[in-house]
Amino acid sequence: MKRKLYDLAAADESVRFSPYCWRVKLALAHKNLPFDTVAWHFTEDEKIAFSGQAKVPVLVDGKKVVFDSYAIAEYLEETYVNEPSLFGDAAQAGLTRFVKHWAEDTLHPAIGRLVLPGIFAMIRPDSQAYFRRTREAMYGMTLEEISSGRAAYEPVFRTVLKPLRRTLEMQPFLAGAGPAFADHIVFGALQWGRLTCPFALLEGEDVIEGWMARLLETYGI
Amino acid sequence: MKRKLYDLAAADESVRFSPYCWRVKLALAHKNLPFDTVAWHFTEDEKIAFSGQAKVPVLVDGKKVVFDSYAIAEYLEETYVNEPSLFGDAAQAGLTRFVKHWAEDTLHPAIGRLVLPGIFAMIRPDSQAYFRRTREAMYGMTLEEISSGRAAYEPVFRTVLKPLRRTLEMQPFLAGAGPAFADHIVFGALQWGRLTCPFALLEGEDVIEGWMARLLETYGI
Repeated sequence: MKRKLYDLAAADESVRFSPYCWRVKLALAHKNLPFDTVAWHFTEDEKIAFSGQAKVPVLVDGKKVVFDSYAIAEYLEETYVNEPSLFGDAAQAGLTRFVKHWAEDTLHPAIGRLVLPGIFAMIRPDSQAYFRRTREAMYGMTLEEISSGRAAYEPVFRTVLKPLRRTLEMQPFLAGAGPAFADHIVFGALQWGRLTCPFALLEGEDVIEGWMARLLETYGI
Repeated sequence: MKRKLYDLAAADESVRFSPYCWRVKLALAHKNLPFDTVAWHFTEDEKIAFSGQAKVPVLVDGKKVVFDSYAIAEYLEETYVNEPSLFGDAAQAGLTRFVKHWAEDTLHPAIGRLVLPGIFAMIRPDSQAYFRRTREAMYGMTLEEISSGRAAYEPVFRTVLKPLRRTLEMQPFLAGAGPAFADHIVFGALQWGRLTCPFALLEGEDVIEGWMARLLETYGI
């Protein structure tokens, strides 16, 4: 039986926008592991109750159930040791953890303020109340307040991107000559932004767009 | 003849505060290479004219002269191959470059706005005009305007630190179990801030302070 990945979907289920699910999809591709996705919507807690928690991604690999994107990547690394490595040696794994925290603590909030109103509009109506409540608590603002701040958030987002842009001007991937999980993490964040932003989030960011295209091409996605 | 490192000094030459010089001092220690420092002050261009440019750090290693902190680290890595590695393999080197850009594009500006007025006050009077002119151009504000914004800059600085703090909560060094040049880069930035800030820059940042102490202890500094 093929692996199954529970993957956050918009009301239009062809749109899969979770940054955490995207990093796992690239990690699975990196490890040459075929998988099917199962569309999952906010509040469908019972659909993944078997995992013992209520968030995606959830990976079902034979009898094994793993949740949390980082734990899934670590599971894949330990289990499929003959496939290309996601984390490399201990030093690379250490630096990958810094990239994870940079993505989650710096990049995600900078993108989130630009895309939350767009996400609200594209998810299933029956999950909008949940989304509004949790995201407004997370950002300490209403979705409408977030929306009206866009002009101020865009330059902040561009500034946050600067170290990424400058690095990719000098080398093809964050992890050097070839991609690794550090690349997947940052790709996930920007793919989330790109798929849900009502305007061209990465306009003029040719270096970053080129790297994203290169990653997808590497994995034949 | 012992190696010489031209090292930015305050009017009180026991205070050496350059982030770029600090990363080189740790890199030299990492490579077990003894060196003497030569105190250097802003505008002493003629003192390092032999290097073909006007900024420190400048390393003189026998007949070899190297400037630019990253170029110096790369020179040490290539030259002293039997000493502990600063960059590890190609993937670690790639991620180290991201840490460099994060430090320079995100962390340095966040610290700079808190410490520039303090640096102005501690450098030699004959270099203050140069410092004011170049830094005011860099930040697009007068030193006095920067000074008056402190209350707004402190929370920004703390937010910028978050990925570093969270990473070091999980592992002893950025590069995992032991330090490498990625650690030296970020240490340099914070040491610069710590030595020039008129208030306790890292108050309450026990995890980060612990890591800085651990680094110095590792190298017996």
